[in-house]
Amino acid sequence: MRTWIRNGLLATMVEGEAPYCGDILIEHDRIVEIGTSVHASEEDKVIEGDGFAVMPGFINAHQHSPMSLLRAFSDDRKLMDWLDRKMLPAEANMTPEDIYWGSMLAMAEMIRSGTTCFADMYIHMDQIGEAVKSAGMRASLTRGLVFLQDDGGKRMGEAIDLVERWSGAADGRITTMIGPHSPYTCPPEPLKETIAYAESRKLPIHIHLAETKEEVVKIRDRYGVTPTEYLVDLGMFDRSHVLLAHAVHLTRKDVRLLHGMRGGVAHNPISNLKLGCGIAPVTECIRQGITVGIGTDGAGSATTLDMFESARAAAWLQKLDYGDPTMLPAGQALRMGTLESAKLLCLNREVGTLEKGKKADLILVDLRKPHLQPNHNVESLLAYAAKGSDVDTVMVDGRLLMQGRKLLTIDEEELFGQVRHRAARIVQGI
Amino acid sequence: MRTWIRNGLLATMVEGEAPYCGDILIEHDRIVEIGTSVHASEEDKVIEGDGFAVMPGFINAHQHSPMSLLRAFSDDRKLMDWLDRKMLPAEANMTPEDIYWGSMLAMAEMIRSGTTCFADMYIHMDQIGEAVKSAGMRASLTRGLVFLQDDGGKRMGEAIDLVERWSGAADGRITTMIGPHSPYTCPPEPLKETIAYAESRKLPIHIHLAETKEEVVKIRDRYGVTPTEYLVDLGMFDRSHVLLAHAVHLTRKDVRLLHGMRGGVAHNPISNLKLGCGIAPVTECIRQGITVGIGTDGAGSATTLDMFESARAAAWLQKLDYGDPTMLPAGQALRMGTLESAKLLCLNREVGTLEKGKKADLILVDLRKPHLQPNHNVESLLAYAAKGSDVDTVMVDGRLLMQGRKLLTIDEEELFGQVRHRAARIVQGI
Repeated sequence: MRTWIRNGLLATMVEGEAPYCGDILIEHDRIVEIGTSVHASEEDKVIEGDGFAVMPGFINAHQHSPMSLLRAFSDDRKLMDWLDRKMLPAEANMTPEDIYWGSMLAMAEMIRSGTTCFADMYIHMDQIGEAVKSAGMRASLTRGLVFLQDDGGKRMGEAIDLVERWSGAADGRITTMIGPHSPYTCPPEPLKETIAYAESRKLPIHIHLAETKEEVVKIRDRYGVTPTEYLVDLGMFDRSHVLLAHAVHLTRKDVRLLHGMRGGVAHNPISNLKLGCGIAPVTECIRQGITVGIGTDGAGSATTLDMFESARAAAWLQKLDYGDPTMLPAGQALRMGTLESAKLLCLNREVGTLEKGKKADLILVDLRKPHLQPNHNVESLLAYAAKGSDVDTVMVDGRLLMQGRKLLTIDEEELFGQVRHRAARIVQGI
Repeated sequence: MRTWIRNGLLATMVEGEAPYCGDILIEHDRIVEIGTSVHASEEDKVIEGDGFAVMPGFINAHQHSPMSLLRAFSDDRKLMDWLDRKMLPAEANMTPEDIYWGSMLAMAEMIRSGTTCFADMYIHMDQIGEAVKSAGMRASLTRGLVFLQDDGGKRMGEAIDLVERWSGAADGRITTMIGPHSPYTCPPEPLKETIAYAESRKLPIHIHLAETKEEVVKIRDRYGVTPTEYLVDLGMFDRSHVLLAHAVHLTRKDVRLLHGMRGGVAHNPISNLKLGCGIAPVTECIRQGITVGIGTDGAGSATTLDMFESARAAAWLQKLDYGDPTMLPAGQALRMGTLESAKLLCLNREVGTLEKGKKADLILVDLRKPHLQPNHNVESLLAYAAKGSDVDTVMVDGRLLMQGRKLLTIDEEELFGQVRHRAARIVQGI
């Protein structure tokens, strides 16, 4: 049976295509027709699109999903205080089952706010894989690799296990990357090994880069170069597609060095704001032809996983940085949160726009709300006024994950019960 | 009959008071009891608070409510282009009835997002007064006074009419201010007259100040002083309570000059971000003992009137400005949007906190959502994760304006119909 989305206001996110009123026909997991005159039949299941904007689901390009269990646990603290005294001790208390439920909590929030796909970096990836499979989302999973202790080999083994077990799993909804954590947690030798492994398996790399000034100082002290130069010198960008999370503190030379890279930057504006990290040079990167997508970072730092809020925060920060309201306009902010993020995850052939032949990963946004009326410009409304809570319907791989605000793959009552007692146990005494 | 809010998580916004689980008893328009053991009876009407945070309604300290008709009409443009080519021509097309419906649209959004009171500056204030009366909100109304043409006398007459007709109207929910628009639209002579009038009637003043760098240059060119010095020199702060909207571009000397002022600053972080104006020196002002509340500015610039988003944007910007995540913590951001804003509107004896004897202007926020679980810290959740759409119940003056997300004083279907055809007419040909 096919699904026919009728009379929606289609914001396709295809470059240069203005939103228009039209229909979408979905068969199995793909969009088979889209436009003003699709060949629907009476047997097709109808989703009424009148009053709704239809757009590709957001793609959250940088996440640590289980940290949703630590949301609002230690806000308004210095970064190292936040990390060392609160996050790391709490994470040390997490069992594999906690990770499963934390990831599920993040996915409940993501689905409810119109995100259909995310890039995740964490530990106990089997549990996250199971959660993704069960929730029905699309995800690119990465085992985060910190090589500061002598169990780096074990961690690398887990990273390889993830790739072996989960690449292409869940009907192809799960892909994997290799995740050396960051320049400051990965010395040259093990980092070179991960690069070599990524190249041998043609796997993308997911790494944090230059999130804070402190990191820049640390790398300068250790190696006499910038964090970006450190990665360049080790050959990370020679052959591999690389997803760089944050990239806040880049020099102009760093940005030039990244010109021509495969992959690009996952910009996390809300996390960067909330931790006081700074404004990433998004406009400079884009001018150098570098792909810039949008992520939220984990809820432990950003608190919210709402990609509508992240998209507008990205636009706001460039306007602020340049003192110019024309910078990073609405349509571009939305494309960064969809198509550009898809590019970072190597998924842009499959998702990120509404186009014939692509996977049916899409959302319906209910415009019949006071804060979304009148409709002078739907891209402006979506970028600057819409909230995750305006998303009515979410489809991934042609399957409905939410309809009429009701989650169809996650039992929220059970989830809340699990989350409450697990969260309380994890932070006890910290 | 009394109303008994039972078992809510009370975030009272009283300085130094941590959120706690308790009850509130409301009689007529006021809170008569609040605490862990109120004397309720079986006859009281119960509002179940279990699972909800209860806090004072937000007070939006700077608005141009009818501009909601122009939401998303001209985003991502240079400020003067936005104003001269889009906003002013569209506003010139607005009839008094348009103003009524535009203000009603703003109030529908405000109530739905937990705002119970706002400071408004616009024209055709009778229509806004009628809309406020009908919607049941609390408001401080100001006729904006631009003295660049020769009809300043007529405008001043309308400002006085507003004061005469509407001060204390709608069961006292409406108060008024005198609103010379800004230093750059008010030459010294008429500005002195408005100051004298405000002093004679003991009325607060509502004025824009130093929103853009261009304004600073303009005033420097004309008068050889900063915009703040211009107002100081004219004696604006000698006797009157003054609400200063924006105050982005203040010198350190300006901030010192404002030390000890009655009134304070309405910070509009989202409007300032979106128009690329800059970061207001909020922390410096607070250190000088100046009250800083939060507003959204009109939806024509900010697009969203959601005070949860504005409160967190205020917090984010100070963290960014100082590179320090401890700046402007969650509780302070929430107090700025409630109690501090109330001070700006001269209403802090009546509203802005949940306290015995104060008016019952309050909201219930539904915490049973994935993005608000688990609850490690309810102030952090409210400041950094909650959305206007999480507000379930809104009460103003002891009267329910929304319950279970259903507006009780505004017919949304009628509103949307009015808004659609009026908005289309207003922008035709622009």
